[in-house]
Amino acid sequence: MRYELFYWPSIQGRGEFVRLALEQAGAEYIDVARRSEASGMGVSALMRWLEDDTVVCPPFAPPYLKAGKLVIGQTANILLFLGARHRLAPKDEAGRLWTHQLQLTIADLVSEVHESHHPIASRLYYEDQRQAARRRAADLRTQRLPKYLGYFERILERNPHASGYLSGKTLTYADLSMFQVIMGLRYAFPHAMIGLTAGHPRLEALRVRIAALPRIAAYLASKRRLRFSQQGIFRHYPELDAPRAKPRARR
Amino acid sequence: MRYELFYWPSIQGRGEFVRLALEQAGAEYIDVARRSEASGMGVSALMRWLEDDTVVCPPFAPPYLKAGKLVIGQTANILLFLGARHRLAPKDEAGRLWTHQLQLTIADLVSEVHESHHPIASRLYYEDQRQAARRRAADLRTQRLPKYLGYFERILERNPHASGYLSGKTLTYADLSMFQVIMGLRYAFPHAMIGLTAGHPRLEALRVRIAALPRIAAYLASKRRLRFSQQGIFRHYPELDAPRAKPRARR
Repeated sequence: MRYELFYWPSIQGRGEFVRLALEQAGAEYIDVARRSEASGMGVSALMRWLEDDTVVCPPFAPPYLKAGKLVIGQTANILLFLGARHRLAPKDEAGRLWTHQLQLTIADLVSEVHESHHPIASRLYYEDQRQAARRRAADLRTQRLPKYLGYFERILERNPHASGYLSGKTLTYADLSMFQVIMGLRYAFPHAMIGLTAGHPRLEALRVRIAALPRIAAYLASKRRLRFSQQGIFRHYPELDAPRAKPRARR
Repeated sequence: MRYELFYWPSIQGRGEFVRLALEQAGAEYIDVARRSEASGMGVSALMRWLEDDTVVCPPFAPPYLKAGKLVIGQTANILLFLGARHRLAPKDEAGRLWTHQLQLTIADLVSEVHESHHPIASRLYYEDQRQAARRRAADLRTQRLPKYLGYFERILERNPHASGYLSGKTLTYADLSMFQVIMGLRYAFPHAMIGLTAGHPRLEALRVRIAALPRIAAYLASKRRLRFSQQGIFRHYPELDAPRAKPRARR
């Protein structure tokens, strides 16, 4: 079956968590909004499911995935579905729930990252909420990121299978999402992440390992992988990052 | 099986979404942190699962539910589990995913409500982020609540079973959560909700219907139901609510 992924065409955003799972699964899929309007796709096709009055189960927002007759919304829900279909999650109930729990915690972290540059309103420009963003980003860097990354580092450390993955013996969609979050944080907060990377060696090893998976490596090198930018969840505003360490004065 | 629910003892918070499902299911459960420390429960028992180094699958935060050997975290994940066990969700894959999708959208709304009084940092007092909160709450009232409530009103309207419930023919955990959200919004934003309630008659009918379910009605009248307060997700700060309509001057 050929999946149809619906997400904004010019950003990684939350769609990227789904793309990574589809790529690692080797699934056939169309990134609908990135195709041409002339072919009946493009952003118009994306908006149709959101706005057409005849859609019985409309998603609240992208991303959503069309899989045959199913139209599935909410990133973590899509991954729950794909994980079961493509061996990207354990089969047993305990493992399935645990992987989903980790994904939902990753989703909470992703939301907090977005809030750090848009603490007042998503619809306003960053420039209109800059002051609040500075305070929120400082809290994110010094309190929330250490808490979240410390948590996931412990999860890797305590995995009884010592697989180097977050959940169970083999790769799951949560590992792919964790990879994306760390890549995003490195883009958005390059200075803050210097210390945070050093302090979380298992997460860094996971990132390197995921980047080297043949299908993921091929995807990252392809045109299908969009670049991080100032329109996505992970944005680099230097004033929101940790201050650059001052070079020592020569004596 | 007797469940053990772990959540902060003095607030409804996210634990309330789980409590409502357990109550409607008629499930036997202990609200662990509200029991005495002397009995080995209380907040110490809650903290144990979060902080003990020997816990292999620690939750990131409450609520979490112990069900035999399973310890399940993340509100929506707990409801996914309970929904399948207690007929609070459709059995077929499409219905199960759709109900979970709605729950995750409710979770997004709940987060935005919390952010409205804590836009800078959860760990800071409201008073230390009051100015940002005013701006964010205004956006919530005028943009986000109409968008979310309009969405859920449409879902009720378009349900092909015309059951008056959000998903399928019968009550699901998403309906119980929607009830809690509307009750919370009425507490937090009594003035703003006057207009919003009138504009969303199906949601109001759902709220009234859920409140009248025998098990829910008994729960709401019991001491097990905590009150809304200024420590939870839904807080009433008059300056964050819509301005009270001015009484007309007499001529």
